[in-house]
Amino acid sequence: MIPKGFRLAGARCGLKNRRRDIGMIVSDGPIQIAGLLTSNQVRSACVDHTRKVVERGVFRALVVNSGNANCCTGEQGARDAAVMAEAAAKLADCSPVETAVASTGVIGKTLDMAKVHKGIGLAHAALGTDPKPFMEAILTTDLVEKEASFEFPGGARIYGVAKGSGMIAPNMATMLAFVMTDAVVDGDLQSMCRRAADQSFHRVTVDSDTSTNDMFLLLSSGASGVEVSAEAFEAGLTQVCLSLAKQIARDGEGASKLLEITVTGTNDPDRLARSIADSPLVKTAMFGCDPNWGRIIAAAGKCGEPFDPAQAVLKVRASGSEFVLFEHGVPTGFDPAQVSAALKSDEVVIDLYLGDGKSATVYSCDLGYGYIRINAEYHT
Amino acid sequence: MIPKGFRLAGARCGLKNRRRDIGMIVSDGPIQIAGLLTSNQVRSACVDHTRKVVERGVFRALVVNSGNANCCTGEQGARDAAVMAEAAAKLADCSPVETAVASTGVIGKTLDMAKVHKGIGLAHAALGTDPKPFMEAILTTDLVEKEASFEFPGGARIYGVAKGSGMIAPNMATMLAFVMTDAVVDGDLQSMCRRAADQSFHRVTVDSDTSTNDMFLLLSSGASGVEVSAEAFEAGLTQVCLSLAKQIARDGEGASKLLEITVTGTNDPDRLARSIADSPLVKTAMFGCDPNWGRIIAAAGKCGEPFDPAQAVLKVRASGSEFVLFEHGVPTGFDPAQVSAALKSDEVVIDLYLGDGKSATVYSCDLGYGYIRINAEYHT
Repeated sequence: MIPKGFRLAGARCGLKNRRRDIGMIVSDGPIQIAGLLTSNQVRSACVDHTRKVVERGVFRALVVNSGNANCCTGEQGARDAAVMAEAAAKLADCSPVETAVASTGVIGKTLDMAKVHKGIGLAHAALGTDPKPFMEAILTTDLVEKEASFEFPGGARIYGVAKGSGMIAPNMATMLAFVMTDAVVDGDLQSMCRRAADQSFHRVTVDSDTSTNDMFLLLSSGASGVEVSAEAFEAGLTQVCLSLAKQIARDGEGASKLLEITVTGTNDPDRLARSIADSPLVKTAMFGCDPNWGRIIAAAGKCGEPFDPAQAVLKVRASGSEFVLFEHGVPTGFDPAQVSAALKSDEVVIDLYLGDGKSATVYSCDLGYGYIRINAEYHT
Repeated sequence: MIPKGFRLAGARCGLKNRRRDIGMIVSDGPIQIAGLLTSNQVRSACVDHTRKVVERGVFRALVVNSGNANCCTGEQGARDAAVMAEAAAKLADCSPVETAVASTGVIGKTLDMAKVHKGIGLAHAALGTDPKPFMEAILTTDLVEKEASFEFPGGARIYGVAKGSGMIAPNMATMLAFVMTDAVVDGDLQSMCRRAADQSFHRVTVDSDTSTNDMFLLLSSGASGVEVSAEAFEAGLTQVCLSLAKQIARDGEGASKLLEITVTGTNDPDRLARSIADSPLVKTAMFGCDPNWGRIIAAAGKCGEPFDPAQAVLKVRASGSEFVLFEHGVPTGFDPAQVSAALKSDEVVIDLYLGDGKSATVYSCDLGYGYIRINAEYHT
């Protein structure tokens, strides 16, 4: 059930094959918007438009299309993003400056605006409370739809949907996350979005690429009338974002499993965790269910953050079992066949202890033939 | 022809299947050694031993094995590296502190020292001037042997051999480069090695991983009696290293082509070139012969170095033709089928102009099914 104060829809206008490709969210009246947009130097026109909406802080409507990223499309692209906002705003009876625009799909092709106009009309006519059609409308190479929700005592809710896939293949994917809430929150939503993203979306790495179109928006209607403290709200928001982020990692292009990588100790455990998470050698080993502790240790060692290998303890957890693979500078006497069997799980936790101190966790996925197939055999 | 003052050999002692796996280089007397060793925090025992030899600066012998990296092998590994040096030194009639040791292969397994002793004996008995057996003895997943040479007026020579493959798969590969010269050089060889590596080996990225065993050694006998200026020598050394580095990139695990990526303009073109070279999306597109300019532009955009996409000019050169793919912020009207046909070449140059200023070039390879096969289906 979506939070109060929102209606949403998805429709099909022919921008991509066979599936819905245009979505809308509208609020019953002007509400708060906060969020984060891609830091890529190369940006879609929709990102520039929506950044202004977020900075202004007032939301009435969102229009999103898949199948075309409207990026590297020059001045025509900027005009098209503005026209999308105007068309959606007209139907939603609001202003384009209160109307967010998002796009995902191929880049370098101008939008077929006749189809977009038709799609906006169809989506607006279909507005309701079932999130399914909207969830489908934002997908590209995603295999599964992604949603997460959180309910506060008293009934206020947070509900989010997302798409990811190649956590970013600029031609085929993009991370989009739209989170709605009807809680009454007293606090700086923009700061909460930044901190929640730092604990969730920013901890996902499928292929270390960052899209031209990434967007995470929080829409806050307050329509439940239920007051929620800033602390409680941020905790709920972070939980919803983390669930969506893990769903994105698990559905990475060609992925067969979610990898959760935690490093404890050193001055910068985050850097070490990312070095492991982005290593193609670690990712291919996990695809092959190979307990290749050497690649994990070496991926940590290469990033420049000093540690003493003799103090390291490397564990993996999978299929309900935990195995210590490396300790005191040498491999333990683990049974490779037993660990390999456990690694067939669709979720593997890699836990590298390098000393007492703070921990950092990063979410990733394995790297297999499917990633190559999707990304080498797709042609511009 | 190898430079004067050296003999070398390769022998087979059973550390790996069917191919030679132990090599030796000896000099006629004490000569100069310089070089660079891996910066990975996790290091093979041979790296620690050879670092001391390089710091001392005097060379008499090198012993190298493939099939076992002697890394993460604890105190036993340190003893084994020392014993390798002692055994080779005894036969070469020199001191272990003048004897470099290198290893490449699986990590976390102690060396079978009976085989190593046998191999050192066989290699020493076979010492001669044919580099072929030595070249074979250092290979792991490499498909081809790698050598390069340079001759100065008067006949002094530089000759180098290398192995790479997964520019580093810790379990199966490592970059090793051994460069010999008989030129008489007046200059700081260590600084020259560092600068030559910065222009060659440090410009190669197959999968962004750095081995626990990487090693580049320069052995300088002066035996030709031909004096070469420091400038001329460094230029020749850089040319030999660059040739070896490009051979390593071209023979990257599963690679079908060499990618040469040059970025011009901005404060840090090197950072941009590496961001493109390491992007799995760019590498899979090149494997698929897909003129996917969007992935290249987006890979540049993601790394945080600011530039104006509207000023960017992206060209590719392949099969003797040059194509402009992106200019003035939008794709040009290139013919995708024609560019795709040209990309079937085994060498592709990607040239991204972002404004006037300095340039940086990085060498890489494409990413295809072969990389997954080699790295996922190999088991520890």
